[in-house]
Amino acid sequence: MLGDEATNLFIISSTILGLIYGIFNILMITKVPVGESGDYHRNDPRYLKEIIGMKTERVEKKNKRTGETEWVDEEMGPYHENWDQVVYTLNRISHAVSDGARAFLMEEYKILAVFIAIFSVIIAVLVEEEIGQFWTVFAFVLGAATSICSGYIGMRVAVFANSRTAYSAINRENGLANAFIVAFRGGAVLGFILNSLGLLNLLLLITAYNYLYLGEEYESEKVRHMYECIAGYGLGGSTIAMFGRVGGGIFTKAADVGADLAGKVEEGLEEDDPRNAATIADNVGDNVGDIAGMGSDLFGSFAESSCAALVVAATSVELTETMCALYFPLLISATGIVVSFFTSFFATNIMKVDSEDKIERTLKYQLLISTILLTPALYFLAMNVLPEDFTFVRGDEVIETHSLHAFICIAFGLWSGLIIGYVTEYFTSFAYTPVKEVAESCRTGAATDIIYGLALGYLSCIIPTLCLAATIYASFYLASMYGIALAALGMLSNLALALAIDGYGPISDNAGGMVEMIHLKKEVRQRTDALDAAGNTTAAIGKGFAIGSAALVSLALFGAFITRSNMTEVNILAPLQFAGLLVGAMLPYAFSALTMKSVGKAANQMVVEVRRQFQEMKRNPHYAPEYEKCVQISTRAALKEMILPGMMVMLTPIITGWLFGPRAVAGLLAGILVSGVQMATSSANAGGAWDNAKKYIEKESLVPKSSPQFKDIKAAAVTGDTVGDPMKDTSGPSLNILVKLSAILSLVFGGFFASDWGGILIA
Amino acid sequence: MLGDEATNLFIISSTILGLIYGIFNILMITKVPVGESGDYHRNDPRYLKEIIGMKTERVEKKNKRTGETEWVDEEMGPYHENWDQVVYTLNRISHAVSDGARAFLMEEYKILAVFIAIFSVIIAVLVEEEIGQFWTVFAFVLGAATSICSGYIGMRVAVFANSRTAYSAINRENGLANAFIVAFRGGAVLGFILNSLGLLNLLLLITAYNYLYLGEEYESEKVRHMYECIAGYGLGGSTIAMFGRVGGGIFTKAADVGADLAGKVEEGLEEDDPRNAATIADNVGDNVGDIAGMGSDLFGSFAESSCAALVVAATSVELTETMCALYFPLLISATGIVVSFFTSFFATNIMKVDSEDKIERTLKYQLLISTILLTPALYFLAMNVLPEDFTFVRGDEVIETHSLHAFICIAFGLWSGLIIGYVTEYFTSFAYTPVKEVAESCRTGAATDIIYGLALGYLSCIIPTLCLAATIYASFYLASMYGIALAALGMLSNLALALAIDGYGPISDNAGGMVEMIHLKKEVRQRTDALDAAGNTTAAIGKGFAIGSAALVSLALFGAFITRSNMTEVNILAPLQFAGLLVGAMLPYAFSALTMKSVGKAANQMVVEVRRQFQEMKRNPHYAPEYEKCVQISTRAALKEMILPGMMVMLTPIITGWLFGPRAVAGLLAGILVSGVQMATSSANAGGAWDNAKKYIEKESLVPKSSPQFKDIKAAAVTGDTVGDPMKDTSGPSLNILVKLSAILSLVFGGFFASDWGGILIA
Repeated sequence: MLGDEATNLFIISSTILGLIYGIFNILMITKVPVGESGDYHRNDPRYLKEIIGMKTERVEKKNKRTGETEWVDEEMGPYHENWDQVVYTLNRISHAVSDGARAFLMEEYKILAVFIAIFSVIIAVLVEEEIGQFWTVFAFVLGAATSICSGYIGMRVAVFANSRTAYSAINRENGLANAFIVAFRGGAVLGFILNSLGLLNLLLLITAYNYLYLGEEYESEKVRHMYECIAGYGLGGSTIAMFGRVGGGIFTKAADVGADLAGKVEEGLEEDDPRNAATIADNVGDNVGDIAGMGSDLFGSFAESSCAALVVAATSVELTETMCALYFPLLISATGIVVSFFTSFFATNIMKVDSEDKIERTLKYQLLISTILLTPALYFLAMNVLPEDFTFVRGDEVIETHSLHAFICIAFGLWSGLIIGYVTEYFTSFAYTPVKEVAESCRTGAATDIIYGLALGYLSCIIPTLCLAATIYASFYLASMYGIALAALGMLSNLALALAIDGYGPISDNAGGMVEMIHLKKEVRQRTDALDAAGNTTAAIGKGFAIGSAALVSLALFGAFITRSNMTEVNILAPLQFAGLLVGAMLPYAFSALTMKSVGKAANQMVVEVRRQFQEMKRNPHYAPEYEKCVQISTRAALKEMILPGMMVMLTPIITGWLFGPRAVAGLLAGILVSGVQMATSSANAGGAWDNAKKYIEKESLVPKSSPQFKDIKAAAVTGDTVGDPMKDTSGPSLNILVKLSAILSLVFGGFFASDWGGILIA
Repeated sequence: MLGDEATNLFIISSTILGLIYGIFNILMITKVPVGESGDYHRNDPRYLKEIIGMKTERVEKKNKRTGETEWVDEEMGPYHENWDQVVYTLNRISHAVSDGARAFLMEEYKILAVFIAIFSVIIAVLVEEEIGQFWTVFAFVLGAATSICSGYIGMRVAVFANSRTAYSAINRENGLANAFIVAFRGGAVLGFILNSLGLLNLLLLITAYNYLYLGEEYESEKVRHMYECIAGYGLGGSTIAMFGRVGGGIFTKAADVGADLAGKVEEGLEEDDPRNAATIADNVGDNVGDIAGMGSDLFGSFAESSCAALVVAATSVELTETMCALYFPLLISATGIVVSFFTSFFATNIMKVDSEDKIERTLKYQLLISTILLTPALYFLAMNVLPEDFTFVRGDEVIETHSLHAFICIAFGLWSGLIIGYVTEYFTSFAYTPVKEVAESCRTGAATDIIYGLALGYLSCIIPTLCLAATIYASFYLASMYGIALAALGMLSNLALALAIDGYGPISDNAGGMVEMIHLKKEVRQRTDALDAAGNTTAAIGKGFAIGSAALVSLALFGAFITRSNMTEVNILAPLQFAGLLVGAMLPYAFSALTMKSVGKAANQMVVEVRRQFQEMKRNPHYAPEYEKCVQISTRAALKEMILPGMMVMLTPIITGWLFGPRAVAGLLAGILVSGVQMATSSANAGGAWDNAKKYIEKESLVPKSSPQFKDIKAAAVTGDTVGDPMKDTSGPSLNILVKLSAILSLVFGGFFASDWGGILIA
């Protein structure tokens, strides 16, 4: 048993530890001396020759065989004359990416500010008076603000770490290891700051509400109402996440698909060729989509699962008796931060990434080690903090459970997360059969590549779904909805690390782009490519993790919603519920249709612009690509196209509840959940597999570059990768938010649906 | 009120009418004198010159510009010297297709016979004694036999009608109209014979069981048990349908994808070029997949919805009082046959298809007219046959309903079917924006084509799902599970016509192939292409219809299963049910993964073989393609690859029920249903859209053939079409069966799940 002060102290200390570690990582990244060009021995001509590539220019030439004139790339001497120029260019690119990302996020946040204001009014109108509109609105705004802050900080650090990763990769001796550590530290900043800030703000919010909302009046219904207000925190987090995921996803993939189609497919250029005007936009996109979007997404999951657990815990007499028992959900996350802190040293200090095959292993081990360490730690926590037996009241039913059961639920979530991560790796890394088969299928063209990739995505749903089903069954059975919320928290307990390895991906992807753009030699690019390929897999693992936790969180919120709407069961063998279930299962499809088409449309505009610039370049060899135009196209497209899917997600549950009442919403939520999980998993994994199948072929693992088939096989693989882009980075990850957001919206507005104003069509 | 004899008489007369009309259509097709070459004026050299194309041969030539030797097609004089040769070749091809189809079906039926025997034993062991294993087994075998017969007859007529359609299309004056009528009549044979035979056998089965099973002992529980035995008829139908759909789907798409990849993409040949060794297999595939498979599928739906309605009706005191009220489900189908009979004259005698744009309209009008005619007819039937008020007993609950309510349920199903058909047409015909957009996206390559097509498929789920949800809500609300079964029967009431227009598609597709293969001029091919393009759309409509009815049927069976397992509700807010729901939603993905990969694998083998034959052909210009080798590859692949997905469908519900009991199965079924509907709809429509986008581009509607972009745009469209092939013809339609079969399996084994032997893991 922990005393009240000790509980608060432990949580606060862990968040301070996390924040300090985040800042420490920023400092360590700053140490990479990319700004200083005083490193004079590097101006040694031999060294420069070793690392700087040759300048090529597009010139018109007569083909001797056919007699026709055509455009060819001709070498025109080394690109840079001294080290200062390299550093200068690197910094210029880094700033262009950073400016683009900042400009986009600022534009996005302006729209979000308006949206938050409007939605605050909606909350104030629709949430019941007895619960307290003001308190819900305040929690909502705080959640939104925390989500914005975390995403923004993550993005800033990422665009700061990418050039330093590129710089570190130049060195032949420790290049790989150093670059790896910089990229990992960049990700760790996002992970630790987000996790700590989220937990700290939540604790402060609860403490403040304890004094201001409850005051002396400590009766059980009031406590429950307080936690229902606090659920607004999760809603705020997820609302921002929605726009972050959808807007960021459209931004990044419009740029990426556009760059690939115009540059790779039509002109036969390499990825990130500086002549391709969309490359900067592509790199900007990685930061706003994968870093800011992913950060907001997982912050939302964390906030929501904590809120769901707290809402349920507040209905238990035994848990509300001591602060440490009630705050158990927060203590899980606090423990997670501490364990993640220790685990991260394995990546930065203990395991040395001195060869390519160690990259993926080191990242994977982060998850394995933290899971192994967390198991006894959380067991100890559960057995000491929770009362041995405790009960919940649901309707007329009293559910009894035990501290050991609570631990088992957490362990199920924790280990399911690990298994999902490993299965995802199996299906998306080119070290294993599935991706190799997809690569092999490129021999017969793009069509078989797509067919195999889609089949792989579908197949990859089986084990994650069975894991989730087992977790849900066990947790539900052992501790009802509290068990589900604990399983979600268990899965998210190593959130800081999951985000670190996820954030690592876009940073190394960006670093690779920069190395290409400053014309360093192939050897350096090979190092960043190796880092990037591991990043594709870890990104897929992160997505598996995000969707798994989203499913559990959403189910926990679903349970809380049912309680709040005064229902005791959801019988689907009834007209409204079944119709809701069917429509719910359709929504992920409708939502994916909108987001994928948005990417297609925006990518088309991008292709037209990039093509125009290539034409210009062919007319005038001194024409420099106008990168900012492409950034603008992505920005405008993303901001415009995120509105419709966003509205769909926000309004569907509210309108359904308003017209058809809470029972229809219950069906809807279940349908969205079970269908969305499959679609998100299959989209993310198919996309990751196509991307790595392409990387596998580019590495010449299937046929050598000299082979006559190489070009066709690679073209097929690029087509697959391009199809996968919006699936894995736009529609797929946005589905997590659809799943979670519809559930938390229903929870917050559950009172409204159950009131006389809900279900007006069936009343 | 109809007397007992009148009821029987009406049903039997309608089936006899349907059978006679089927035979009449066969006779009309026979009248097309393709066998006789006595039509001597056709040997007039001017006439021959008009219709016979020039022979080309692949010869080695020196390219003057590049100086390299390459293979080119050179015209070598007219293909045929007289009319006899044309007719001879046409018949030879027709026989090759017919032999291939027959050989495959015979091989398939051998495997099915073994399977039916084994499964009969399983039924005999697992079905409860009190219900009667023997009776269930007998109904199962009869259902399977009827399904096999219908599919086989449909296939025979189709391979008989295809050459006659091709022959009719030759004539410049009435070619289009005559060919249309022959193809439509071919489809009508399948539609009317299948519908009539299915209804007749079901009536005979019920009548026989009335005497033999019930005898004098007419007590309500015994009657209910009798109809539970009769549900075996539906199970038999759907079991065959499963193998028909999966095996046939793999056969047809392995051939089609293989032919496209090796012939169109690699060699740049036209569709159905006779030098492509896989063309015959492709044409065989259309008959075994789309005709025999589709026939079995819809026969299964018909049998199951009739059985579901009868099982529920048997629980009503008022309905069991008179035969006509109890047989109301059969009377709906009987009325449907009569109305369909009259409607079909609009296609064959009233509307004249004398221009291309009238083809699709005439086929669509069939559905519209029959729906309009059926509405008052079924109203009249319901009001006169059913008691004004009647009740059902479900658990402790008594559900009251009325004859008018029953009619509203039927009308909801009937009109939903029409709306689903029209929405499907909107999303898959190139007359409307969606397909045009997909075609437009081919300008930027295959990747955007695929992205747009996937988005289109997802988007096309919205309205069908809302229609189904509205139908389910209304029918459920008005007449509980009986209402759902009636809605399904309403949707299937114009089954004969739906099958006629569906069967029309493969026949005209085959006819087009034959025209290409006997080297008739482009003008003739344009006529068959126009017929075929409409066929793509009607095939998609048929699939929309099949999945819509499968959803309703499955829900009706679900309801019957719940009753049989002694449950009164399915609360998904419980561990087992929710876990089941989640796993259920995953199954359509797992199933699609298996079937799509099977097609990919088999297509790869096909490509290798076709490539080998092309090499041979280039070495030896007189080498004739060995079509039968490709047929063998498809046959072997289909028979081998259908086993695993088939086992998955059959065993999942049984094993789930055995291990986790009926509540887990209930969750599973709901999950399969809501997720499968979306996936089937989106797959079928995306596939149809890609196919018609390709046809739109081939018609030069986007850019003229002379344009430099034409080749690239067409290549992109062909890739999209190839990806769509397994989605629309293998995995998509097989999902209907997954949805229905798991439900009827659960119904038949419901008693076992609820017994002491069910749910052994959770007992």
